[in-house]
Formats: sequence, structure tokens, C-alpha cells
Amino acid sequence: MTVRFGLLGAGRIGKVHAKAISSNPTAQLVAVADAFEKAATDIAGQYGCDVRSIEQILSATDIDAVVICTPTDTHADLIEQFSRAGKAIFCEKPIDLDVERVKACLKVVDAEGATLMVGFNRRFDPHFMAVHDVIARGEIGTVEMVTIVSRDPGAPPVDYIKRSGGIFRDMTIHDFDMARFLLGEEIDSVTAQASVLVDPAIGAAGDYDSVSVMLSTASGKHATISNSRRATYGYDQRIEVHGSKGAVSAENQRPVSIEVANATGYTRPPLHDFFMTRYTDAYAREISTFVDAVESKSPASPSGLDGLIALALADAALKSVREGRAVKVSEVLGVLADKSVFQGR
Amino acid sequence: MTVRFGLLGAGRIGKVHAKAISSNPTAQLVAVADAFEKAATDIAGQYGCDVRSIEQILSATDIDAVVICTPTDTHADLIEQFSRAGKAIFCEKPIDLDVERVKACLKVVDAEGATLMVGFNRRFDPHFMAVHDVIARGEIGTVEMVTIVSRDPGAPPVDYIKRSGGIFRDMTIHDFDMARFLLGEEIDSVTAQASVLVDPAIGAAGDYDSVSVMLSTASGKHATISNSRRATYGYDQRIEVHGSKGAVSAENQRPVSIEVANATGYTRPPLHDFFMTRYTDAYAREISTFVDAVESKSPASPSGLDGLIALALADAALKSVREGRAVKVSEVLGVLADKSVFQGR
Amino acid sequence: MTVRFGLLGAGRIGKVHAKAISSNPTAQLVAVADAFEKAATDIAGQYGCDVRSIEQILSATDIDAVVICTPTDTHADLIEQFSRAGKAIFCEKPIDLDVERVKACLKVVDAEGATLMVGFNRRFDPHFMAVHDVIARGEIGTVEMVTIVSRDPGAPPVDYIKRSGGIFRDMTIHDFDMARFLLGEEIDSVTAQASVLVDPAIGAAGDYDSVSVMLSTASGKHATISNSRRATYGYDQRIEVHGSKGAVSAENQRPVSIEVANATGYTRPPLHDFFMTRYTDAYAREISTFVDAVESKSPASPSGLDGLIALALADAALKSVREGRAVKVSEVLGVLADKSVFQGR
Amino acid sequence: MTVRFGLLGAGRIGKVHAKAISSNPTAQLVAVADAFEKAATDIAGQYGCDVRSIEQILSATDIDAVVICTPTDTHADLIEQFSRAGKAIFCEKPIDLDVERVKACLKVVDAEGATLMVGFNRRFDPHFMAVHDVIARGEIGTVEMVTIVSRDPGAPPVDYIKRSGGIFRDMTIHDFDMARFLLGEEIDSVTAQASVLVDPAIGAAGDYDSVSVMLSTASGKHATISNSRRATYGYDQRIEVHGSKGAVSAENQRPVSIEVANATGYTRPPLHDFFMTRYTDAYAREISTFVDAVESKSPASPSGLDGLIALALADAALKSVREGRAVKVSEVLGVLADKSVFQGR
Repeated sequence: MTVRFGLLGAGRIGKVHAKAISSNPTAQLVAVADAFEKAATDIAGQYGCDVRSIEQILSATDIDAVVICTPTDTHADLIEQFSRAGKAIFCEKPIDLDVERVKACLKVVDAEGATLMVGFNRRFDPHFMAVHDVIARGEIGTVEMVTIVSRDPGAPPVDYIKRSGGIFRDMTIHDFDMARFLLGEEIDSVTAQASVLVDPAIGAAGDYDSVSVMLSTASGKHATISNSRRATYGYDQRIEVHGSKGAVSAENQRPVSIEVANATGYTRPPLHDFFMTRYTDAYAREISTFVDAVESKSPASPSGLDGLIALALADAALKSVREGRAVKVSEVLGVLADKSVFQGR
Repeated sequence: MTVRFGLLGAGRIGKVHAKAISSNPTAQLVAVADAFEKAATDIAGQYGCDVRSIEQILSATDIDAVVICTPTDTHADLIEQFSRAGKAIFCEKPIDLDVERVKACLKVVDAEGATLMVGFNRRFDPHFMAVHDVIARGEIGTVEMVTIVSRDPGAPPVDYIKRSGGIFRDMTIHDFDMARFLLGEEIDSVTAQASVLVDPAIGAAGDYDSVSVMLSTASGKHATISNSRRATYGYDQRIEVHGSKGAVSAENQRPVSIEVANATGYTRPPLHDFFMTRYTDAYAREISTFVDAVESKSPASPSGLDGLIALALADAALKSVREGRAVKVSEVLGVLADKSVFQGR
Repeated sequence: MTVRFGLLGAGRIGKVHAKAISSNPTAQLVAVADAFEKAATDIAGQYGCDVRSIEQILSATDIDAVVICTPTDTHADLIEQFSRAGKAIFCEKPIDLDVERVKACLKVVDAEGATLMVGFNRRFDPHFMAVHDVIARGEIGTVEMVTIVSRDPGAPPVDYIKRSGGIFRDMTIHDFDMARFLLGEEIDSVTAQASVLVDPAIGAAGDYDSVSVMLSTASGKHATISNSRRATYGYDQRIEVHGSKGAVSAENQRPVSIEVANATGYTRPPLHDFFMTRYTDAYAREISTFVDAVESKSPASPSGLDGLIALALADAALKSVREGRAVKVSEVLGVLADKSVFQGR
Repeated sequence: MTVRFGLLGAGRIGKVHAKAISSNPTAQLVAVADAFEKAATDIAGQYGCDVRSIEQILSATDIDAVVICTPTDTHADLIEQFSRAGKAIFCEKPIDLDVERVKACLKVVDAEGATLMVGFNRRFDPHFMAVHDVIARGEIGTVEMVTIVSRDPGAPPVDYIKRSGGIFRDMTIHDFDMARFLLGEEIDSVTAQASVLVDPAIGAAGDYDSVSVMLSTASGKHATISNSRRATYGYDQRIEVHGSKGAVSAENQRPVSIEVANATGYTRPPLHDFFMTRYTDAYAREISTFVDAVESKSPASPSGLDGLIALALADAALKSVREGRAVKVSEVLGVLADKSVFQGR
């Protein structure tokens, strides 16, 4: 069976998914929608699919699944609409910037029995997956400490930052999800510190550009996250997990791995300078995993619940910075008595 | 303009090129031919092209270029036929196992003004290209010594070895081409030693499985090559160039770059175990370069002359092993008074 | 001029300093004192020096300086006595486990004009010194984030842990000093989380074995510290500093740097398994720096103030764990109106 | 028992051995001799030993062993004299530049039953020893190919080159010994190529500065050696051994292992720039091994025979360059019917 796709949003990340769908032998890109028509026709021309309105995709009988790459404030509504229309849904993170809105949305997904997968692409990076596999095979024993360093080559436009929900909800959210993915236990409390070191305009917009976070689980496992919106040496993406029997780490990736030696020393080139080239393989595997879930009618992962919790961790981090104390996740998220409600299908 | 391709030979390497052509936005796979019909229909089904006979491709008006992936002993004849038919030709190495036959073939190519490119895929590996670029930018000064280590994870079947022309013509030939590519000066003499350490059956077939080669140029530059048909740790492909101002090297590549640490030490996974996964990017760039040459009607590189000289170096190496002495390339190749005759378009 | 030494304490660390003094061309080990006579006579025999009582060393006219390696609870008293006796003093960390006692002691040192250096040996590790030098030369711009990972191969005996003042005062104290050394700005607040993951006996003794710490400065610079009392792969000692123009890191050290490749992968041996082999060079340079300070009658560094502040940071970390909040260093240390009083000569 | 030493020659390498002897707890430096009195008195002053003439050392009853660091052309005579005087002998390589002279000398050593060890210091480098240990434990199976890269930061003075016997006898000789040490089988034939790329003055002195060598054993094992008298990036000393079950390599060493990252890339400092700092540990272990042999009256290794064979390999390499062919070692060395005659005690 081929999964037939509608793509909602033809911007930067929409193009990434259009390419991933087109390269997937069991997926087909049927239609693309975008408020900005030129963006949609470009993708349609490149991959030979229709340009349609969101409404047309909603009612289409030749479309099984949608990929939501529209602006964040439309995600929750679209998820609800497409759940009701019986389509499988892949949605870029975050589902919404408000925890309660996410909860309400996930209840609709649950009621409709829809398949929902949230776009935490890093889980599908082959190197990070290999780290996860090493842990799963028990090679490092019990996980004790996860260390994540994640730095962007440069800050996004301040205009974007204002709409992003801030660094914790926009950038650190990936690291929160990765920490959960690797710890294998829910996070209990969050402590964070944040400052503006890169660009005062970011501070003026009410956000931070340099943050450190400590997470702890009920059993006392630790995770630390270090983020910066500046790294002259490229897109710095490292993960390390220390356990009772050993440790495992994923090294940084560079497009070209050569070394030049001279009187100055031994120099290797900078890292990837962009998340799209860094995570090319991850995006392809992510869509492939979604296609498999749709085909096999099995639950998709990362789920809506994963999206909800990562957002709650971001909110807890921000609260921690503001109040100068460790914040329990339950303070922000509440107690999820029946987690299955939030998990999607 | 889109370059329309006929693929001759639908075996292992034919599939690689079919994929590269299909992924290239300015190339189109129009037809495939193979004596073994199932192989051809498989590719045709996967990429939506015709199955045709070689004769049909030769006379087709909707085909601009061919990729020759048929058995080695058909290469020279096909090159001549397609040159006369006015098609651009990409041919897997080697053109032929006989230097004189190659020369005769290249004279036809020259007379017809055909475009011919020979498949030394490693020139297009991004890491080796970067090494070449570093040299070209003068960063290591004058090249003095090229060191190539190239080891296969395992030996091919003895049956293949018998038809291959031996390790120098089949395996080392890539390293001869790479040495020339990086030295920037023609090789003057070849000294080689060879033995059978991996499998006596290889020796029984009249070939070697472990070889070392030293090359020197007229100005006294050195290159050394180390080959083995066995490497438990994967497909070992390293290049290092030492010059007057510094050195540059390309590191080995592995599919996953993680590191596991425990009481045994720090372990990174083995290398790629297959040339196709190792050189995925190289094959794509290779076809892209050929497409560019066809489109721009500019000479293709590596040329027929590059194929001829690499073969002559292989012959010289074998002669050196047998006679226990340094062999001048001119002994094997003769003196090429007018090189342009052999270079193709 | 040769600096003539008395060594107080002939235990494990005393032996390290005895060797460093003996190897130093401008130092001479004159006498050693230890309550356990066998330990003292062993060192005396090996290096050809006297065994004397602490009182004899205090009144000796042939001794210029002492190295204090006795139990922690004797340090402050000995520093005061030898200050009054006009000897230069090198004291192992910590000066005392009580901030107020340290302050009182340093006031005596100041009043007597004594030279006092505190044993933060890691500042003298050639690799960490090189990191500091890179920062000092401005190569990475303004320091923004210091990341320290420091893990011991195994936990000390619980008996030791009870007397040690806890992991923050015993182990993390080195990292607090290193963070200050590299940040180039005083630390303003400390947040820590701690748990018992390695050995319940450590928890039963009232201590932790796994801790994470975040530090921030007034200008918003960050440092994070990750400590564990267990690392199967050896003595894990890494430092990384991220700045506005780049980053610098010191790699882990291993006694033998070879790599074995096979079907399992590429394996390098474990790290040093002991702080003494890891920091051999650091101990030699540390004593050499002290000798230089004594000879040139210039202030010694790290000073008594450095010892005081590192202890205060440890206290603040413990307070943060207990109270679940960010703790200002000033809460623990008070405000040091006249820092010179605590700095020693 | 303490081994009491006389040091013959107080030059650069003499100083290295003086330090190694003085640091060795079971060795004592009793006397030093040098034609240049200032050099001898400097060492005597530093280590508290006598200055004596060679004749005085020869007849001394308080000296058990000598270290010969005088000019090469005196080595064989001194070995013979001290053999007859009943002293154990450590001699810097080479024993002599003439194979027949070496043979004659070793016959005297054998007749006198003297202990003779030859200074191939690299066998005692901890990293190369570890490579040897990995092979000895069978971890890489049967050794098939040894690859040695050995490059000096810069060329020695031409005046030295003239007296040195040429690059093969002066520099490559270390690599010949290492190849034998790691191959575990005697070398049967030598092929070499050599050129002058670094400095024409070296060519004018009749020597080469850039050489490549291939060695083979009777069973078909390979070794390759690459030497240059120039390396802008430091003292390049790498060894790699490929076997039937895997490979092992020793990495280059640098005094400081940090890495600086910025927009240019990731840069580690250059290598050691001098053989003395690179091989500090090796020199200490070398003397320690000699002391052990003298104390235990067991045969010393590397032996006189090791010195003889390495020299013969150098001669064979030179002959190969001149005659453009593979040279059998037996052509140069003859057949050693009774190897024990040349091995020393």
C-alpha cells in the first residue's frame, strides 16, 4: 500500500518533507497547500503533485495522511480538523505553545482514534538512534546521566524569536525530548538558568540566547542541557549518556572529514552549518517511520503525549529561571491520570 | 536541457547508476538493456523506463548518452559503436584489460569526436575531492608523498578474480588513478611486491591478495599503495598527502559515528562494509559531472586517457612483481606522442 | 637559591609531593614528619632526608617552606603556626571544611605576611593550562559557557567519605576552582542537584555520588559541572569552554594511545585509572610554581582566597540541593569587603 | 644490586642517558668521559659524578657498565675494548657503518661473553610496546602488513649528513628495526626509491631526503616505510600493523592535547617537534631494560645481531635505489650460519 500525502505548508521545513515523501517508495505526494501560492506551485512543479486548498485536502478521498508545516498557531486546529476527517497526521513541533490547548487537542485526537506523530526529528538521526540502541541493549548498564550540548550556528531573526515562544519552547524542546528518549524515565523536576550573551535584541524581545538546564527523575537520574544561539564552529549537536557499566556518545557531524596538518596544527573542517544538512537522514527516516505506522495502523511515536510533555518541560524551565528554583513538572503539566488519552493512535 | 540515458547492463553497478540518474534533476533514464531480462525489467519497473536491446538503444533518437556497465570484455566494442552512433559515453573501468586494445578504442573515440568518461568514482568522493581541493589551493605546498591504504572487507569469488585481470587491474587500478589525481605529475616508474596471504585459492587462480606498490615521478615525488583483500574492520579507504608546507588526509568513513566506553576501552563501530554504501555520494556526483559535461559539450574527466594510463600502471606493477625490478611506465604504455588522441572529448 | 622543604604528612599525596620536590632542581627536601613513623622513614630513606617532628620543623633554621599533607582538620592550625614561624606554606585543599575557620586562618596569614598556596593541582595540568592560555590570548573571544565533566573510576571508602565533608567539598571543589579559573569572573549563584546512584552506603553516610551543578556569574556566564563516583572507562576529566568567537576543549588522557580495529570496531584503551598518573605533570608543575613564588617573594596562586571561595561554592551547592533553589554565593561567603585580607602573599 | 655506569660521550644523546641513569633507582652514574671537557664537567656537576678519561673508565673497578654515545666511527673499537674489560655495554646505533666491521666486532663480543645492547629506543616507547603486545597476544591474528610513517620536523645539518652514512643508515635504520620487531619474521628482500625534494644541499652531499621502502619476508609479509626530512606539523611517528584478524596502530603524540574550534574548523596543536621530547619515556625504559639485563645476567635485547641486521637492511635499501631492483638481504649480509655469534649476551 502506498500512503498518499497532503502537505500543509510549503515553507522551509515543508520542502524538506516534500523531498522525504517523494523519495519514499511507499509514499506519494498528492497535493500541497500554502497561503503563499508561489511556494505551493514550486513544490508542485518539482514533485509533480497538485496545488489544493486546505479545505480540498480535508475532503479529498485520494489523501490518507497530512504533514502539517504551517505556522505554530494553526497546528492544534488543523490536527483537530484532520482527526475528524479521518486522516493520519504528522505535525511539526510544537502542537501549540499552550499546554492546556495541547491537552484539549489531544483529547480530540483520542476521541477520533486518529494517528498523530509529532516531528521530533532528532530521534531518527542514525547516530542518536545508535546511542539509543546501545542503551536498549544494556551495554552501558543503568542510565545515570545524560549530557546534551546543542548550539546553533547563529540566532534566528528577532521577528521569529518573538513568535517562537522563546528559546525553551523553540530550541531546547528538542533536547527535552531527547533527554526523555534516552533517560527511559519521566522527568520529575527542572532547574534552569538563562541569560543574554549573544544579542541584546534577543533580550529586548523578552527571550534568552544562552541557557543551561538540569533535569532529574524520581529515581535520581540526571540530564543536563547546554544551549547557545551562537557557535562559530557550526551546528554543535552532541549527546552523551553515562551509565553504571559504561558510557556512549554521538560525535558531531561534518560534511567533509579531512584533516590538514601544518605548523599551526591539525585542522578538521567546521561542522554542518545548518540543521537541514545535519539532519538529512533523520528527516527521511522520520517520514518513513510515519508511513510505516500509517500502513500498519500501529501507534505513531513520538506521540502527541511526547509533544505535550516536551512543551511542559519547556514551561517548567522558564518558570525555574523566573523563580530561581527547581520546578516540578507536575506544577506545569498537572497529573495525567490517564496518559493514553494524550498519546494518539 | 535534460540528458536522456540508456543504461547498458543492469547488474550491481548498473543499479547504482540507475539510481544516480533517476535522482539527478537534469537526467532521465529512458531505457535499460541487459542480456538477463529479469535484471532489466526490475530496473525498468523501479524507475519507469523502457527495456530495450543494445541495438535499439544504439539507434534510438530519444537517447543522448549511455552508461556502460556490461562485462569488461564488451566495453571497448561498445564504446566504439556508441561513439559512431554519436552518443556520449560513460564507461565503467576498465576500458579493456589490454593496453593496445584500449589505444585502438580511444583512437575511434577521438576520430568520432565522442564524449567519453571513465568510471573512477573515487575522484568524486566528497572527502577525497576536499583533499584535492586543499592541494589545489596550495595549502600543503608542493606535493611530495602520497600514501594510499585501500583494503576490501573480503575477497570477491575466485571465479570473478579469474576474469578480473588480477588485483592490480581490478582493485589497485583505483589507487593508481587516485595517485595520479593527487600527485599532479605523471608517474614515471612502478615497483611492486605481491603475495598470497588471505586465500590460497586466489594464488591458485594466478592472482595475489596482498600488494604493496611504490610509484615515482620524474621530479622524484613518491606514492605508495597498500592493498589487501581482507579487512575485518570494514572497507578501509585512506588517503594522505604530504607536501612541502603540510599534509592533508581523508579519514575512514563509518555509517554510524558513536563511541561506547567501558572497562575494555573506547570503541567506535566498524567502517562501511561495502563500496556502495561507502561511495554513495561519489556515484551521485560522478553521474552529475558526466551530465554537466554532456550538457556543456565540454571534455569529460576522468577521460579515456586516464583509463589508459591507470591500466598501464597496473600492467607495470605486475611486470615489476614478476621481474623484481622498477618498471618504467613507458615500457608498458609506449610514448604517447599526441596525448590528445587518447583523451576523448 | 634552593628552597628547603619540610614535608608534613607522608601519606599518598605526601609521597607525590616528596617526589616532585626531589625532582625539582631548585628545591631540596630536608625533613619529613608523620605521626605514623614508618611512613616518614620510608620517604626519608628514599630521598635522603631527615625524619623530624612537626615542632622541630617549625623551629628549624634550615627549612624555608612546608608542604602540608596532614588530615584536613589540622590544616588551618598548621597554616597559622607556620605563618607565625615565617615559613612559606603550600597546603593541600581544603584549608578547612568550615568557611568561618578558613577566614580566621587567612587573617592570620595576612597579618604575618606569609606566602600561602593552596593545592588545586589541576590548574597546572599542561592540557588545562593550554586551555587557559587559549582563552587568555583571546582566541575564543569572550567566555560564555564552561562545561566540566569529572568522574572518578570508583568511590573512595565510605569511611573516608564521612570525614571528607561530602562530594561537593571533596570532589566538586576541584571543578569549582577550575570553573572560576576559566570563567574569569566571580560566580554569583549556584544551583545543584544530587543523588545516590552508585552505592547506597554513600547515601547512608549522608553524602551523594552523582551530582550536577550550574553556576552563573553576574554578567550571565554559565558553567556546568557533572560528577560521578563511578566510571568504568577510567578517570574522566574533560573541560570545554565556549566563547563568542569559538571554543576550546581538553581531551581525556590515556596512558597508551593505540587503537585496535576488528569486526567489533575500533577500540582505544581506557583512560588513566588514577588521579596520580593522570596528573603526574600537574603535581610537578604545581610545586615548581610554588618554589618560584617563594624564591621571587611574589604572591602564590592559587591563593588562600581561592581556597576560601571554592569551599564557599561547595557549601552553596549543598545548600541548593537541600533547598531546591539557586543559592547566591554571598549567602554562604558573606561579602568580602577587602579581599586582599584572604589572599595570602 | 645497583648497576654502576660510565658514560662515554657527553653530547646531546649522552645527556639523555645521563638523566635516565640518574632517575633509575637501581642505577648509578659514576663517571663521564668526553673529549670536550666542558660537556663532561657539565654532566658531572648536574648529577654528582666524576669526570674521567675513557682509559680510566676502562680500568675502573667501580664501574659495571658503559653507555657509548661517542661518534659512530669509535663505536666498534670501544665495544671491543669494553668487552675485553668485562663491562656490560649499551651502545647507541649504529655499531658501525660497515657490515663487515660490525661482524668482526660482534665476534669479539661473543668471544668475551659480553653483554651488549644496541640503542633502538623506539622499541621502548610505551605506545609502540603496546602495539607489540597486542600482536603478541594474538589480537590481530597473523601479521600481514606493517606500515611505518616516520618524518623528521627538519633535516640535520649537511655536515652531519655527510658523516651519517646517509638517510637509510641514519634515519630509516630505526624503521627497519621496528619493521623486524613487529613482523616477527626476518626480512628477505628490500626495494627502495629515494629522491631529493627537501634540500638540494642534501643531494649535493650524496644523500636523499625523501625515501620509500618496501620489505618482504619469505612467507610474503609486507612492510612499507615512508621517510621525509621535512614535516611542518612536527615529528611524525606512526605505526600500523594489519593482520588476518584485525589491525593495530599507534597514533602520533603531541605535548598538549587540546582542540580549538572556530569558523576555520577544529584545530589540535602540532606534534612533538623533537625526538627527545617525543621519546622521553622510551629512553628511560630503554636504560631500565639494560639495567635489568645486566643485573640478571640475561641476554640484552635489542642485541648486536639486531644492530647488524638493521644496518644490512639499510645497505640493501641503498643498493636497491642504485640498481633499481629488489635486493635480497643475503646479498648484503651473507648467510649467518651461526646467528648466536652475533647476538651478544
